[in-house]
Amino acid sequence: MELDRIVRVDMTTGTISETPAPESLRLLGGRALGASLLLQETDPAIHPLHRDAVLYICPGLLGGTAATTSGRTSFVFKSPLTGGIKEANVGGQLGHRLARLGIKAIAVTGASPSGWQQLEITASGIRLLPADHLAGRSNYDLHRELVGEAAATRAAATIGPAGELRLAAASVAVTDPEGRPTRHAARGGPGAVMGAKGLKAIVVDDAGAPRSIPGLRRDEYRQHVTRFSRLVLEDPRTHNLSKTGTAGVVRFVNRDNIQSMPTRNHRLGTWEHAHSISGQYIEELGQSRGGKMLPCMAGCIIKCAILFNDEHGNHVTTALEFETIALLGSNLEIGPADAVAELDRLCDDIGLDTIEVGNAIGVAMEAGVLPWGDWQRTRDLLEEIRQGTVLGRIIGNGTVHTARTFGIDRVPAVKGQGLPAWEPRTLKGMGVTYATSPQGADHTAGMVTARSVNAETLVKQSRHEQLVMMAIDSAGLCQFTNALPADIAAFISARFDTPCDDETVLRAARAAIESEREFNRRAGFTAADDRLPRWLLEEPLHTPDGPAIFDLPQQLLDSVWS
Amino acid sequence: MELDRIVRVDMTTGTISETPAPESLRLLGGRALGASLLLQETDPAIHPLHRDAVLYICPGLLGGTAATTSGRTSFVFKSPLTGGIKEANVGGQLGHRLARLGIKAIAVTGASPSGWQQLEITASGIRLLPADHLAGRSNYDLHRELVGEAAATRAAATIGPAGELRLAAASVAVTDPEGRPTRHAARGGPGAVMGAKGLKAIVVDDAGAPRSIPGLRRDEYRQHVTRFSRLVLEDPRTHNLSKTGTAGVVRFVNRDNIQSMPTRNHRLGTWEHAHSISGQYIEELGQSRGGKMLPCMAGCIIKCAILFNDEHGNHVTTALEFETIALLGSNLEIGPADAVAELDRLCDDIGLDTIEVGNAIGVAMEAGVLPWGDWQRTRDLLEEIRQGTVLGRIIGNGTVHTARTFGIDRVPAVKGQGLPAWEPRTLKGMGVTYATSPQGADHTAGMVTARSVNAETLVKQSRHEQLVMMAIDSAGLCQFTNALPADIAAFISARFDTPCDDETVLRAARAAIESEREFNRRAGFTAADDRLPRWLLEEPLHTPDGPAIFDLPQQLLDSVWS
Repeated sequence: MELDRIVRVDMTTGTISETPAPESLRLLGGRALGASLLLQETDPAIHPLHRDAVLYICPGLLGGTAATTSGRTSFVFKSPLTGGIKEANVGGQLGHRLARLGIKAIAVTGASPSGWQQLEITASGIRLLPADHLAGRSNYDLHRELVGEAAATRAAATIGPAGELRLAAASVAVTDPEGRPTRHAARGGPGAVMGAKGLKAIVVDDAGAPRSIPGLRRDEYRQHVTRFSRLVLEDPRTHNLSKTGTAGVVRFVNRDNIQSMPTRNHRLGTWEHAHSISGQYIEELGQSRGGKMLPCMAGCIIKCAILFNDEHGNHVTTALEFETIALLGSNLEIGPADAVAELDRLCDDIGLDTIEVGNAIGVAMEAGVLPWGDWQRTRDLLEEIRQGTVLGRIIGNGTVHTARTFGIDRVPAVKGQGLPAWEPRTLKGMGVTYATSPQGADHTAGMVTARSVNAETLVKQSRHEQLVMMAIDSAGLCQFTNALPADIAAFISARFDTPCDDETVLRAARAAIESEREFNRRAGFTAADDRLPRWLLEEPLHTPDGPAIFDLPQQLLDSVWS
Repeated sequence: MELDRIVRVDMTTGTISETPAPESLRLLGGRALGASLLLQETDPAIHPLHRDAVLYICPGLLGGTAATTSGRTSFVFKSPLTGGIKEANVGGQLGHRLARLGIKAIAVTGASPSGWQQLEITASGIRLLPADHLAGRSNYDLHRELVGEAAATRAAATIGPAGELRLAAASVAVTDPEGRPTRHAARGGPGAVMGAKGLKAIVVDDAGAPRSIPGLRRDEYRQHVTRFSRLVLEDPRTHNLSKTGTAGVVRFVNRDNIQSMPTRNHRLGTWEHAHSISGQYIEELGQSRGGKMLPCMAGCIIKCAILFNDEHGNHVTTALEFETIALLGSNLEIGPADAVAELDRLCDDIGLDTIEVGNAIGVAMEAGVLPWGDWQRTRDLLEEIRQGTVLGRIIGNGTVHTARTFGIDRVPAVKGQGLPAWEPRTLKGMGVTYATSPQGADHTAGMVTARSVNAETLVKQSRHEQLVMMAIDSAGLCQFTNALPADIAAFISARFDTPCDDETVLRAARAAIESEREFNRRAGFTAADDRLPRWLLEEPLHTPDGPAIFDLPQQLLDSVWS
């Protein structure tokens, strides 16, 4: 078996071919590799659901190694949501298994002419299988069937009904260590692209994969693993994540001076019932219900994923995240945690991005389609997406589509993508990232939560954090490791037996961001797309320090990448 | 009463102000004036339905004069359909009345905070009136009430239910000489913009308007009117239009070597039942039903508007146009003419662009939402738009929105606007115009039907015709006069007592096109938007001369305006 292969799957002809990755791509992985391939190989003018559009699935550079959290996977594609490049980044068990099988990238092109297909990847080969029997099935059911008891060596990446319907908010569900479909390559519609290709599922089994990686400097790598793990475990942020997950921030960001708890379609930044959806409350509930904190992939030492059980101790969802809690909770005035957890499970099952759908339903509530805080009808709406009703298709196509359908001009989106919870009016550095990331409104593209610093500093911080996140996403690491470029450089150096330092890493990240920007440019993006929607510039949040709007000048936004 | 006024209506405050047009705008009218004002005054990044977006309503430079067809009106706005500048051009009785009252432009801004409003314009003043009693009402009913027996001096411009719902395919209906709402500023969603402002109707009564125009060189102007009318009447094209309207081309363009009769969502270019929707067939029907040919405005000598009665002699629709017949007829495999005429009446009544809705329903048929050729369900679908059901809102938001809802990647649109009937694979000059016009896919932006000429010639012809159409749309003339720049120059010279020649006219047209392009550029458009959808480059029509695709190189498209 060749290592560092690029596997090409032509769904039209059913042909699968493999080539060794060329030397020029050797030090590219994950998001950066996807960006490079998309820019080289895909017509930027193509319709994202066209048969010739390509979906790239790339584990990171450190995939398959013992570095903690290093098994994340990048889904890279032209987005049906934004019309530009998208990287949807996901944890779970997929990335390590692909990397162990020596796969650096899967490029899926074409479209199946004869029903649904399943891609099976094992140490003995790769093949397409007919999968019409999986049509219409949802993710929990699918992962039970495709992974089931074999979770120790198997992982699946599947689309639910939303992906089959090619909805722009459709995710790809990836198996977690317990065999459940709770990790999602969610943002920008990778599920729609996979659906358009007729690919219902990818199943990877790494039983029999080689145990060692040629070229890796073993002792040195092991030392880095140990040192890095210690750094991560000593970080107080890790402690918080291990205890209350990302939901732990709810109480903090709900404060008057932060107001990063979107409420009523982002009209307010605090919600009076925020406690009922906070990490602390969820932790308390969990004590009597068997709740626990889990890793999203084997080898992760952070364990930020909240396993949420109902009052009878039955599993409801895993990975009940802050963004989900904010967009499907306070933003819709829905609580307590039990209510949001069930919506999260539905999204996981149907295969939907919770951020995009939460924003879309917020817009629908603003349009009067359903009342604020109506959990039952929100639940019904998600079921309508599963069923493919016309209203379901609207919501499932995301924020901008829903706003247009109902004539709403106050749209919480940047580059067509729904706004995350982190509030750009109080945390203006987030606004810089949302506006200038090639990825659209994306909190994982570069977190800048500093306040009380000047605008120029925010711009510098956003640029730096965007570069660091590119490096992290390309290594296949988790952002919660807070890995520095030097940490990544040390790993790369030992993994690929090559000199590498922090500047090399940042330079490569900059080049990859430029590839993303170049793709967007060719797809028709300009500086006019590097903007926040006007209501964030006009409509203040009222804080103890006075009214807060996003008031950074456009020239500063344009200076981020110039 | 000041002449050449710009009237500004702030719907938020209810304030109406008037200023004399500055000297710099004196020789701008209609489309060119709208482009200039929009570029100067409107934030190109604004959401088209935002209260600060502006709707400009501009009669042409020759409005109010005796030149035949010179009363056309330009509605100019940032389009909710394309996201760029749009001019929706309309005949009917509005333009002459506005011009006679000395109004060069109406700029509507803001949004009514207290229900629907009606703008009343007479020789004694301009005022806003509460109009909640008009809410929900459709155009035939509205024009009967607002114009009724007073058609000799009154004209209305109204939105139907589609405009109230802010749908991107919503038109503004303008009164014809018989008092009916059969003339539509249709393309790009002017009805949605008017709806977003809370403006349900504009009623203009020019009783008491001045009889003469200061500065106009009367004898000279009268000579030009006579000469121009003779030219128009002697033109064989006029003869055809006066006999069978635009529908007269159906038989011709349905031929194997033209294939400009879109069928089955533009998959074919000929329809076997085309005779049943042809101008000749409609003419025959009319002989026993009291059908006739009408002018769309007083003073028009072409009279291309087909008045279509049912078998009992009752009025069904007026202005049953080729584009309507093609997009709501053959494109959906719907006929005969009676069936299409009723769909046309429904669109007029609800306030919808027939081209956009025809394309959207074609896409919905392709998605299996309703069967090909199903007239009853097409009719029901239009009624759903009137009622504002979710599916109705989808279709009413146009082609791209419908395609996205149903996951269709073969989208008949350019710059977000649905494709007219004229076929860019056989008539490649039309493709050049569709791709490069700032207006999106628009057959009235520059007709080039030449075949058997080389690509460079087509580019030159498209550029020239686009400039001529800009001049015609700015003069307020009808394209069917086939006015040459020299004709327009002669009129302008006598009307404004100023030197003007054909080169002046073409230079001004070029500057106006540049204003439109500059607005689009600032709104985020690039060369990537000056392209046809890929399926027109891939999917051939089979003609006696071989397979026809749109195969002009992109560089040639880019050379149109460079």
